[in-house]
Amino acid sequence: MAEESVPVLRYEERPEGPVVVLLDQTRLPAQEVERVCTDVPGLVEAIQSLAVRGAPLLGLAGGYGVALAAARGFDVADAAEQLAQARPTAVNLAYGARRVQGAYEAAVRAGGAPEGAAAHALAEARTLHREDAEASDRIAGHGSALLEELVPGGGLRILTHCNTGSLVSGGKGTALGVVKAVHRAGELRRLWVDETRPLLQGARLTAYEAAKEGMAYSVLVDGAAGALFAAGEVDAVLVGADRIAADGSVANKVGTYPLAVLARYHGVPFLVVAPVTTVDLETGTGEGIEVEQRSGQEVTELLWARERGGAGPESGGGFSLAPVGAQAYNPAFDVTPSSLVTAIVTDQGVASPVTAESIAALCSASRTGTTGSGNGMMRA
Amino acid sequence: MAEESVPVLRYEERPEGPVVVLLDQTRLPAQEVERVCTDVPGLVEAIQSLAVRGAPLLGLAGGYGVALAAARGFDVADAAEQLAQARPTAVNLAYGARRVQGAYEAAVRAGGAPEGAAAHALAEARTLHREDAEASDRIAGHGSALLEELVPGGGLRILTHCNTGSLVSGGKGTALGVVKAVHRAGELRRLWVDETRPLLQGARLTAYEAAKEGMAYSVLVDGAAGALFAAGEVDAVLVGADRIAADGSVANKVGTYPLAVLARYHGVPFLVVAPVTTVDLETGTGEGIEVEQRSGQEVTELLWARERGGAGPESGGGFSLAPVGAQAYNPAFDVTPSSLVTAIVTDQGVASPVTAESIAALCSASRTGTTGSGNGMMRA
Repeated sequence: MAEESVPVLRYEERPEGPVVVLLDQTRLPAQEVERVCTDVPGLVEAIQSLAVRGAPLLGLAGGYGVALAAARGFDVADAAEQLAQARPTAVNLAYGARRVQGAYEAAVRAGGAPEGAAAHALAEARTLHREDAEASDRIAGHGSALLEELVPGGGLRILTHCNTGSLVSGGKGTALGVVKAVHRAGELRRLWVDETRPLLQGARLTAYEAAKEGMAYSVLVDGAAGALFAAGEVDAVLVGADRIAADGSVANKVGTYPLAVLARYHGVPFLVVAPVTTVDLETGTGEGIEVEQRSGQEVTELLWARERGGAGPESGGGFSLAPVGAQAYNPAFDVTPSSLVTAIVTDQGVASPVTAESIAALCSASRTGTTGSGNGMMRA
Repeated sequence: MAEESVPVLRYEERPEGPVVVLLDQTRLPAQEVERVCTDVPGLVEAIQSLAVRGAPLLGLAGGYGVALAAARGFDVADAAEQLAQARPTAVNLAYGARRVQGAYEAAVRAGGAPEGAAAHALAEARTLHREDAEASDRIAGHGSALLEELVPGGGLRILTHCNTGSLVSGGKGTALGVVKAVHRAGELRRLWVDETRPLLQGARLTAYEAAKEGMAYSVLVDGAAGALFAAGEVDAVLVGADRIAADGSVANKVGTYPLAVLARYHGVPFLVVAPVTTVDLETGTGEGIEVEQRSGQEVTELLWARERGGAGPESGGGFSLAPVGAQAYNPAFDVTPSSLVTAIVTDQGVASPVTAESIAALCSASRTGTTGSGNGMMRA
């Protein structure tokens, strides 16, 4: 597993000062390269270029980033603001940054010296990290129990989109964490991996994790999922989430919504898997979710090819995939309404059917510290 | 337009003997390179590597290929067989090859010398070419009339997949031919171009034709179409076809079927545009259509990047997009049932609703030489 070889994200004290070190995900699977961030602007750049990505991991990056600012004596409120705004859709990023900022400010208010408050901030970031790893284990348990109920008999063929494993989390991951649990129980027949254009997180990152786990997996272009459903080759769809609104609408990597429509058309369960911190009760409905629009060059060029030594002569940067001057429409996410989601699986249990009530119940369990009913189901 | 600058496909008498010259579509849009085929194996290779592609154009390639074999004194039946089998899904390829073979054999049976029979074969291929260009014009007329009826008021936002323009046809094309007619009438607000992984015929070829026509267009990754539908940004979907079964099921480029499901879910018209020769009455239903499975390397590597001077150091051929050894699922086509198709637009008129009866009526009009009713509609 990735977290056992190269750590995905860590905070390190070095002689020249503290740093945040991350595995540069834009270089995978060809190269395992670490990137060292000495300040918040460097970390913001790493977040925006997707060197570090994935909803839960962005929460940890936000948290460690604030701790880094505190330790280096920068303005903590300003650092938290910069980090929270680095990408607009993932709610966990702001959550992590604000939570560690809160711990720092509480320590200052209690009369602590800046050094002591910085230590409090780092401790809070580490707590967040540990909680995320634990959440990941609970998610895997709830998810595999639900799959056993929905698709009894094992031998599962699971379709997933984007990357939701060790590379996005302090632990085993969200949707891919559930797939790993199913695989380790000997119940996975095949993982179908959507390549996930434009940035190919499926082909590059999910395939990398699936290969390390020894899963039977196949990569497919995103448009080929329809043929798989039509052939009866998909038992369940599992995806992550970047933000879940109070009504259960799910923002996730672009290409998720068409899978939800296909799954409904074919009567296949469609599960969203995420820590409960992905729920944003401040956002009432799917329409309220701000969707990040990214550069059209991500679509019309293979930008990361440049860094791998292969820029073509006809292009200034990566390979051109389209005529010079082509416009592109490039939303990073799409929004799936709760009516198309069979269940939302969280560390606090399962919401199914997905309604404002079942979502509220999960969040309230989270706030009161209860962990759902015995079998992990919490249904409104 | 492409056919005005570099001809897409032509038969040429040269001092050293006759040849078939084609625009190598794997090199577009960066380079306009011609490929010269002196014999049938060379042409078969060009067909299989997709240097020449697209259902109607494959019919012309098959026809000219048989004429080439006849002119060079090769075994004509064997040449027709090799060409007909070069790709299994596109019915036009076999149609073109068999039709020119038929003309050759009829001339031989009538007592002609091989040279005379070869001239008959070439004349038949040229007739096929002219018919295809004319069919293309009739298709454009029927298609724009239907769009005016289905989505009155103009200002159309049309979504298309793969490439179906001058590059696949002796004329303006099929689905993209209709879009060109709408554009020339000033009624096109935007063409949404699915990039069409794995071989990017949308981003590379449709964008190339749209740019030459001066259309407002945007390229998008295939997974982003869902977000467009959800935002109400699509007025109609127009796609081509590689084979239409007698029941109206449509085999077309992989990724077409998900668009049909999305269009139905959002109540948007989904039109299939193809010459009536794409209908294969011998194939009763969609299940009977053989779908070509292509190499997984098309998904896991960018093979054509190699020829453009950019092979990365870590890869033997193109760029690796996935870990070494990754398996891929790579069907070239998917099959859309007639129930999801609003109308099939052909040179012989329109089938809507799409049923075995309306399809049979179009084919019978084709055989008897009638060209449908006054407004081009022929509805069962």
